[in-house]
Amino acid sequence: MEACRYFVLLAALLVGLVTASLVDNRIDQFELDRSGINSCNLPDGLLQEIKGYQPIVNKIISRIVDGEFAGITWDSLSLLVDTFGARLAGSEQLEKTIDYVVEQMKLDQLENVHTENATVPHWVRGYENAQLVAPFKKNLPLLGLGTTVGTPRGGIIADVMAVESFEEFESITAEQVKGKIVVFVPKWEGYGKTVLYRSKGASVASKKGAVATLIRSVTPFSIGSPHTGGQDYEEGVKKIPSACITVEDAEMILRKYRRGDQMTIHLEMEDRNLEPVISRNTIAELVGTTYTNSSVVVVSGHLDSWDVGVGAMDDGGGALISWKALTFLNAMGLRPKRTIRAILWTGEEEGYWGARGYQAAHKENEKKEFNFFFESDIGTFEPRGLDFSGNKDAECIFREVVKLMSSLNATDFETPTDGGPDVSLWTRRGFPGASLMNKNEKYFWFHHSAGDSMAVEDPKNLDKCTALWAAAAYVVADLSVSIPKDVND
Amino acid sequence: MEACRYFVLLAALLVGLVTASLVDNRIDQFELDRSGINSCNLPDGLLQEIKGYQPIVNKIISRIVDGEFAGITWDSLSLLVDTFGARLAGSEQLEKTIDYVVEQMKLDQLENVHTENATVPHWVRGYENAQLVAPFKKNLPLLGLGTTVGTPRGGIIADVMAVESFEEFESITAEQVKGKIVVFVPKWEGYGKTVLYRSKGASVASKKGAVATLIRSVTPFSIGSPHTGGQDYEEGVKKIPSACITVEDAEMILRKYRRGDQMTIHLEMEDRNLEPVISRNTIAELVGTTYTNSSVVVVSGHLDSWDVGVGAMDDGGGALISWKALTFLNAMGLRPKRTIRAILWTGEEEGYWGARGYQAAHKENEKKEFNFFFESDIGTFEPRGLDFSGNKDAECIFREVVKLMSSLNATDFETPTDGGPDVSLWTRRGFPGASLMNKNEKYFWFHHSAGDSMAVEDPKNLDKCTALWAAAAYVVADLSVSIPKDVND
Repeated sequence: MEACRYFVLLAALLVGLVTASLVDNRIDQFELDRSGINSCNLPDGLLQEIKGYQPIVNKIISRIVDGEFAGITWDSLSLLVDTFGARLAGSEQLEKTIDYVVEQMKLDQLENVHTENATVPHWVRGYENAQLVAPFKKNLPLLGLGTTVGTPRGGIIADVMAVESFEEFESITAEQVKGKIVVFVPKWEGYGKTVLYRSKGASVASKKGAVATLIRSVTPFSIGSPHTGGQDYEEGVKKIPSACITVEDAEMILRKYRRGDQMTIHLEMEDRNLEPVISRNTIAELVGTTYTNSSVVVVSGHLDSWDVGVGAMDDGGGALISWKALTFLNAMGLRPKRTIRAILWTGEEEGYWGARGYQAAHKENEKKEFNFFFESDIGTFEPRGLDFSGNKDAECIFREVVKLMSSLNATDFETPTDGGPDVSLWTRRGFPGASLMNKNEKYFWFHHSAGDSMAVEDPKNLDKCTALWAAAAYVVADLSVSIPKDVND
Repeated sequence: MEACRYFVLLAALLVGLVTASLVDNRIDQFELDRSGINSCNLPDGLLQEIKGYQPIVNKIISRIVDGEFAGITWDSLSLLVDTFGARLAGSEQLEKTIDYVVEQMKLDQLENVHTENATVPHWVRGYENAQLVAPFKKNLPLLGLGTTVGTPRGGIIADVMAVESFEEFESITAEQVKGKIVVFVPKWEGYGKTVLYRSKGASVASKKGAVATLIRSVTPFSIGSPHTGGQDYEEGVKKIPSACITVEDAEMILRKYRRGDQMTIHLEMEDRNLEPVISRNTIAELVGTTYTNSSVVVVSGHLDSWDVGVGAMDDGGGALISWKALTFLNAMGLRPKRTIRAILWTGEEEGYWGARGYQAAHKENEKKEFNFFFESDIGTFEPRGLDFSGNKDAECIFREVVKLMSSLNATDFETPTDGGPDVSLWTRRGFPGASLMNKNEKYFWFHHSAGDSMAVEDPKNLDKCTALWAAAAYVVADLSVSIPKDVND
């Protein structure tokens, strides 16, 4: 208690001393004084300051959800995906979309609208077809995985073997695998675990002489749709064609294999990897009243998508709420102390190439340039709250910010997290950040499939996500203190 | 009340007088005496007789759901669909399945196992491909509809128009439609109403000069899968290619059309109609102790399916519970007074051609031959009860039979109904019948799509359906009275 009382006293004193130019220094002091304290005891002045944002947060939410901005996010997203369709890295459709967004952001009167180049892979899906040809003919809907090689012309016809896990596969000799198409049929055990079969299956199978891999789509629920996604070939291992088939077909093949049924598949894939190309991150700002190019608050989502469906959910929603949050704050005449920068990443799906390029280009002054990273890339269903990454001091401040979102019923707070795939390039190194938590229980039903469409997005929920995004970014960007960070390189 | 007391008295007397040979006559008497009475006041003797089946019903249910038969229905269905795949009328796979089922029914020691010929259509799906080629390229997953004609070789390339309803289409001139691909995008308003766009869309559009129709798949929920199904060309109207596309793509096309976007689709379909062929209904019996070829209780489902998915749900489940109900009653040594006949119909999907053939062949003595028709063709999810069709007297008896299913929690009773598509050929004319009500809220999610697979079927629920089927058929077949009917021709 003694340490605590001392801390409160000192903190209150410090808050009193704050001037805009001292913000970053003061925070260092604040961090120092909190050493050894685990629970949050924010300086009372700071606590009151955050609570003081409640009226403005309520106003932002009400005008976006129920006021003149209601429905605009969905309409804008719909117009974008209906006009340009899917936006695979390297495609003309993605670049046309970027041009369009730049133009629209300018019409929205956002500031410093521009693009920044980033090199992205250029993988192209060709004609793909798989048929069970024996013991009976059955079309096997499939989607080649990003970076997969194709089959030779005319395809390959090979016998099939199926396993449920890498462990089971280990027990099988190379002799048994050689020349076969290996079907991996992992049970759904959450995305993080199950996706390893998609990302590593080809090389695991290739090492034992498989000629191709077909993998159960990475989803807990299916209506006969295959799901695509990225995959990695291991260095020095022969590259073999790799695709996802449906849950239904994968499970059937596993049952048949276990019963001893001989199966033959004809697999034809004309997928190919071309030379990397230059794409662009799309950027717009609401320039801060006090800081312009330092202590920036980033709100982000990625504009690229896979080439199936139209990428309305992954990640059209995340990109649109980041863009429209700025548009609506601007239209409301709300300008915080710090700059809010919307970044619509490119080339995320193949391994966040847009974010990598951006990070490299902004590396030198990054500690000074960036204050906080928001990213939305796990759906824009009804928002629940924010998922935080950062040090304890930052957490204590951000917990209070999230409490302001009560009128959205979106005050859930979780930590730690990596902040989202793109911004994890910063948050994993100690920059504070947050990602949008939402009621996304069905996210993986649609993920990377033909089901990723406007049918997944609900106008009211999208409004709520934009409102949460705008309100949280506004408060973080306007606070008297920057959010503390411990950056490790 | 007077009439009622008199009735009960008389009925009790009649029940007392019953002998097996008088059953059918007595029922006529029973019907006569009930004239003018609307509510059920079954003769007490009959009521007590039905209630007396409770122990045997409980035993049937417990041995199928929790005893030595548990899991067998799912395993048998899985083996069937995994071995033969989809079973389209006219296909070799269907005929091989029929041969296999005949053999298995004999191994199950069922009686009078045989097939009866029926002529079925022979429509064949060929290569199908649709691409939005302008304003951007997008693959449009599609499934041609049963009986559709194909496109000319190389396909057709045409501009697109889209409407939400037939009413909207009426307001459009033939000039505007001519040469176009018409996309119908009806809202889901339940299967019965929405399916009209699938069944009639082609001819409606053709009359105004459309070159093809694409229809929103008939489902309330989608993950990017198209759904097939039957369709009818109107006599004298030019036949144009007709297919279902996904809900997602249909809705996108409608939005784009309403915004004034020009769209062009390249549609290629090699579907074709061949000469009708002979298929077979598959039949087995548990011969009655008292009646052999009269007063038969039919339990049925259809063995054919569409050619996408494997038809595990539509109607592998219905076929299997009908077959296995007999197998398990037989194995338990339970043999009712009347014959229970399992009929696994052929060619249902194209318009119940198996049932039509069977009806024609059995027409002459049908009133004497058939007592009751069970059909399961709306899923074999967790059973809820039975959906009844028949006259008031029959209803009164059957209501009491359904009450016996309390240990399955499946005592829901609804009426009127048409009894299911195949048996409606009889029930619509006054024969009594019932179909399996089950928790099939998601039935149309999977219906006629690649999602119709074993993943939809749950072993425990299938056991419960088989148990309900076996118990209800047993009681109806063993009662001292036949179920009353008023057959109109």
